[in-house]
Amino acid sequence: MKAYEIRGGFGLDKLVPVERPDPEPGPFQVRVRVKATSLNYRDLMMVEGRYNSKQKLPLVPNSDGAGVVEAVGQGVTRVKPGDRVMGIFAQAWLAGEPSRAAQGSTLGGPLDGALADTMILHEEGVVPTPAHLSDEDAATLPCAAVTAWSALVTHGGLKAGDTVLLQGTGGVSIFALQIARMMGARVILTSSRDDKLERARALGAHEGINYVTTPDWDKAARALTGGTGVDHVVEVGGAGTLEKSLRAVRVGGTVSVIGVLSGGVGAVPVTPILMGNLRVQGILVGHRQSFEALNRALTLHGVRPVVDRVFPFTEARAAFEYLKSGAHFGKVVIRVE
Amino acid sequence: MKAYEIRGGFGLDKLVPVERPDPEPGPFQVRVRVKATSLNYRDLMMVEGRYNSKQKLPLVPNSDGAGVVEAVGQGVTRVKPGDRVMGIFAQAWLAGEPSRAAQGSTLGGPLDGALADTMILHEEGVVPTPAHLSDEDAATLPCAAVTAWSALVTHGGLKAGDTVLLQGTGGVSIFALQIARMMGARVILTSSRDDKLERARALGAHEGINYVTTPDWDKAARALTGGTGVDHVVEVGGAGTLEKSLRAVRVGGTVSVIGVLSGGVGAVPVTPILMGNLRVQGILVGHRQSFEALNRALTLHGVRPVVDRVFPFTEARAAFEYLKSGAHFGKVVIRVE
Amino acid sequence: MKAYEIRGGFGLDKLVPVERPDPEPGPFQVRVRVKATSLNYRDLMMVEGRYNSKQKLPLVPNSDGAGVVEAVGQGVTRVKPGDRVMGIFAQAWLAGEPSRAAQGSTLGGPLDGALADTMILHEEGVVPTPAHLSDEDAATLPCAAVTAWSALVTHGGLKAGDTVLLQGTGGVSIFALQIARMMGARVILTSSRDDKLERARALGAHEGINYVTTPDWDKAARALTGGTGVDHVVEVGGAGTLEKSLRAVRVGGTVSVIGVLSGGVGAVPVTPILMGNLRVQGILVGHRQSFEALNRALTLHGVRPVVDRVFPFTEARAAFEYLKSGAHFGKVVIRVE
Amino acid sequence: MKAYEIRGGFGLDKLVPVERPDPEPGPFQVRVRVKATSLNYRDLMMVEGRYNSKQKLPLVPNSDGAGVVEAVGQGVTRVKPGDRVMGIFAQAWLAGEPSRAAQGSTLGGPLDGALADTMILHEEGVVPTPAHLSDEDAATLPCAAVTAWSALVTHGGLKAGDTVLLQGTGGVSIFALQIARMMGARVILTSSRDDKLERARALGAHEGINYVTTPDWDKAARALTGGTGVDHVVEVGGAGTLEKSLRAVRVGGTVSVIGVLSGGVGAVPVTPILMGNLRVQGILVGHRQSFEALNRALTLHGVRPVVDRVFPFTEARAAFEYLKSGAHFGKVVIRVE
Repeated sequence: MKAYEIRGGFGLDKLVPVERPDPEPGPFQVRVRVKATSLNYRDLMMVEGRYNSKQKLPLVPNSDGAGVVEAVGQGVTRVKPGDRVMGIFAQAWLAGEPSRAAQGSTLGGPLDGALADTMILHEEGVVPTPAHLSDEDAATLPCAAVTAWSALVTHGGLKAGDTVLLQGTGGVSIFALQIARMMGARVILTSSRDDKLERARALGAHEGINYVTTPDWDKAARALTGGTGVDHVVEVGGAGTLEKSLRAVRVGGTVSVIGVLSGGVGAVPVTPILMGNLRVQGILVGHRQSFEALNRALTLHGVRPVVDRVFPFTEARAAFEYLKSGAHFGKVVIRVE
Repeated sequence: MKAYEIRGGFGLDKLVPVERPDPEPGPFQVRVRVKATSLNYRDLMMVEGRYNSKQKLPLVPNSDGAGVVEAVGQGVTRVKPGDRVMGIFAQAWLAGEPSRAAQGSTLGGPLDGALADTMILHEEGVVPTPAHLSDEDAATLPCAAVTAWSALVTHGGLKAGDTVLLQGTGGVSIFALQIARMMGARVILTSSRDDKLERARALGAHEGINYVTTPDWDKAARALTGGTGVDHVVEVGGAGTLEKSLRAVRVGGTVSVIGVLSGGVGAVPVTPILMGNLRVQGILVGHRQSFEALNRALTLHGVRPVVDRVFPFTEARAAFEYLKSGAHFGKVVIRVE
Repeated sequence: MKAYEIRGGFGLDKLVPVERPDPEPGPFQVRVRVKATSLNYRDLMMVEGRYNSKQKLPLVPNSDGAGVVEAVGQGVTRVKPGDRVMGIFAQAWLAGEPSRAAQGSTLGGPLDGALADTMILHEEGVVPTPAHLSDEDAATLPCAAVTAWSALVTHGGLKAGDTVLLQGTGGVSIFALQIARMMGARVILTSSRDDKLERARALGAHEGINYVTTPDWDKAARALTGGTGVDHVVEVGGAGTLEKSLRAVRVGGTVSVIGVLSGGVGAVPVTPILMGNLRVQGILVGHRQSFEALNRALTLHGVRPVVDRVFPFTEARAAFEYLKSGAHFGKVVIRVE
Repeated sequence: MKAYEIRGGFGLDKLVPVERPDPEPGPFQVRVRVKATSLNYRDLMMVEGRYNSKQKLPLVPNSDGAGVVEAVGQGVTRVKPGDRVMGIFAQAWLAGEPSRAAQGSTLGGPLDGALADTMILHEEGVVPTPAHLSDEDAATLPCAAVTAWSALVTHGGLKAGDTVLLQGTGGVSIFALQIARMMGARVILTSSRDDKLERARALGAHEGINYVTTPDWDKAARALTGGTGVDHVVEVGGAGTLEKSLRAVRVGGTVSVIGVLSGGVGAVPVTPILMGNLRVQGILVGHRQSFEALNRALTLHGVRPVVDRVFPFTEARAAFEYLKSGAHFGKVVIRVE
């Protein structure tokens, strides 16, 4: 099998193509022929050594992969060769409460991930690919789409008529936009670029706020709700934007913390959380039942992910650099083979 | 003021037009000039003495009314003259858990209701009418639409991709159809008539089952979900249809009991509830917070109720007879003026 | 290994001791040396062919077993030889929503159960035995205690100060009593015998109602709550007692259906469910996360199950007959060795 | 009537006794003869002008009061003269979701509060005093006890066997200790003084940590849970202690933010919220339904608040100074009359 490994240290220049022996699936395991993998900001941080400095190397990066079951080990009943599947991020988190064990079972670190043409996964660690999605589409779901679903639906209890504030046009935010629309919610989206706001509107966003020309986007969002505040913010920025998010949300509303793009530590005011009866909910992707529910929704609505650009396997590094540039809108995918 | 009263006994022939002295709103009360009222099956049962035989007479029937605030009593701050409002069914149920006290505060019995040109309500007992709705539209919401919302959203936690089974084309079922669609769910609807199924499809139902030609509609519904069963049934029939509903729903699914059209008592099998980990949830309309959430959703989506027919105030009895015939699709309204 | 099998037909006389080859645990499996098993009413119905007439025979009955891990297969990490464990009822229901697949993975039918000195289970299908419990204690938990916990805690959201109505002194009811007390709730318990009521009071029940001398126990329970009704009923009787339970519960309260001792089908009135905004929740045991939470509570409080009587392995049939007599208070256990 | 007012500016020296005309209850209002009031940190901040600098003066401070209904206005049905009652903090928050309107209806600012011998409240704004409590006991409940209940029960879903970490021995923490015990949870409590830890243990705390001698109390708490982390932290310190709280809690656990004693703004790390799937929940007291549930629990268990010291009405300022010193354990009360 071929793969990329982070070897001999961290950094994009340590991401090297390798050949590994072809693996056989053990009992209750499946061998997946990976057709596509997508990039999350976590993958970039992992390669650069900013996610977990204790991560053992070499590591095959990337949490998201989709492909076809090629072979199954003894006792496997959930899937069969030929089935199109996606890997789930936390291989051991099937439903219910998260756990430390579940968090130690994530693909793309600590476990080998999807930047490879082959993955060995437990049969419980895959879900069927919806028929209307290509493998490249499917490869975008396991982290970003499940995160957005967990935030808005599983934990957020979103309902028709609610207002959701989204930040930027990265993978999670665009999935959140699509999910919020399927759930009948109103979407306000921020971006630094008017052309991206325009694209977001074309995808269903009701309102766009350019946070460069409107730095007080929290007040602008609040004004768009008649002064009440939004029901839900999907916070991708971390400490750098959290204060404004706390000020944009209504009394009793929710801020889902799903990323720390603009900083993991910062001067966060606690008083608005208290005075607003706010809920700040950390969302580290989600469990398989959420993934399955998401897939039912995508299937019913025929919704397809927004794939910004597809790179060939040989240009994996370029794909990471493109993600790093922040120029994308939606997901960055690598086709495998 | 003019009104209809149930006087001197129960029955449609005891529903008589009367003149009453014009009332003044007391402190914290508002006087609403009723423009329209809609009929619920409960109203018919009330008139016929089948709902609550201990109800004191005379009674102005009808739970649902919409109109304009004409005058406010001392201390009123929530509304002002000229505001368009709808009365809430249980005047004292604003949010949270129901209570016996809340249940004793319902319009159209035990309290005087909306089949009149004037109502005196507590200021907490009204909600603003969404701007895109006519008074006739608005008059359909307080019972039927709030019931459907409570069942599917407040208690049901419906989410995009879920499958909902609805029975017939009465007021609650059609609102449930509209709400399920706003929430991104799939809708299967049963009816005795193909033309009604056709109309339901035009409103967004994904599948229709004619329960006359397909008496095993539970199996048909289950088959439409690949054998899994539906996520949610909104049960309007009562004991007469409950058994089939229990067999149509998936393991862990919900049956919302919102009516007893086909009988309040019957041989209900308890075993499927147990073996299927089912939830059977009684829904007696709902609280004001649900009503307000519903209104936000209707407003965002520009959804208008399906009004089957509007009767003039002078033909109130005919309106009840029409409701009783079961020929309607959606709501039956009486214009008041 | 030695076991009992239901062989050649159903009935207590078809429950026969057998010798089977000693099994080896496959990958991700564990071999448990069973030390004790307890009886549930389901086990009796299974033996008598009243639970599932399509059950394939021979079958080793009994859902509940506790013992010691004797050997583990390849890849097992959750337990090691020497660990004291209990089997979980639905081997594939670890958390979250139930499923048909989970329901097909239950011990004591369709899968072989615990009336044997050896069980082969998946490593995910066991939980550690709390240190303060004997194996005989532990053998009582997997069905009855988890059912009571699921009903009151996982689904019921019980809180201190709530009132719970329990029926009789079988396994589930006595566990429900102990759990309700740990959660700070008030307990009203019914029984046909004053001596059993006395024992229940000694275990912490606040009130007892003899349903023979007080056939209107629903009214008595309601009176004990000042006319409001109880918050939660754990219904073990099924259709035969459900009507009274529906009348004992408060507006907005919950009836957990966990058994059908007095009949699975009957004339159940649907109207009180509707008019009382009641929730009727089927509880088919529960998932592993509930079991683990239960164990933490039992451990913190040092609570031990009420074991009525322990039979030797050779007297398994007598144990079933004793359970059938209804004379027990708490759990009936069979010691295996 | 007599009262204290904050007059002519903020500061303890601006807290002055005054005589006001005796008020009459308007329609739906009640006049409460206040017997006792308790102090919350919010009251101190209000007097010192640190809570809301825009607060209009003069203001009668104090959110918490208990006493006897002396007279009722027209239309009042919930209470009658002679009833013992407590005021609720947010007069307009009866149940369900909070709102800005509810937040503008709080006693002791912006509305006049309980440091007076008379209060005029809406009839919906009082709850009956449990019979086993003195007025001085009762005066401690409306803010501190309801906050603890909202955090642990209403929002926290606490269950028997869970572990709760509490900080210090102020009013909320000691109520949280009592509530956690009623709910069957395990309690770890921190304090700067061993004698206070000893008293907390006597009240039921399972473990105490002296945060002076053990500055890494987060690690100590985690160690006490076998490395897993606690289920729930009731955070009274704000930004100053939040980081440690986030490190003490288990994956998927909850930190309830109920105070900002040690600072409202600070460098809070967002990453642990994300990586731990944590929930940080702001708790601004709570609604009337929570208060009523709390009262049922206190009544069933015969639990009485821990009153540290009772000051006479004439020594109100000394009471505030005592609260400010932090020397108290439980609640500081002022007897009125």
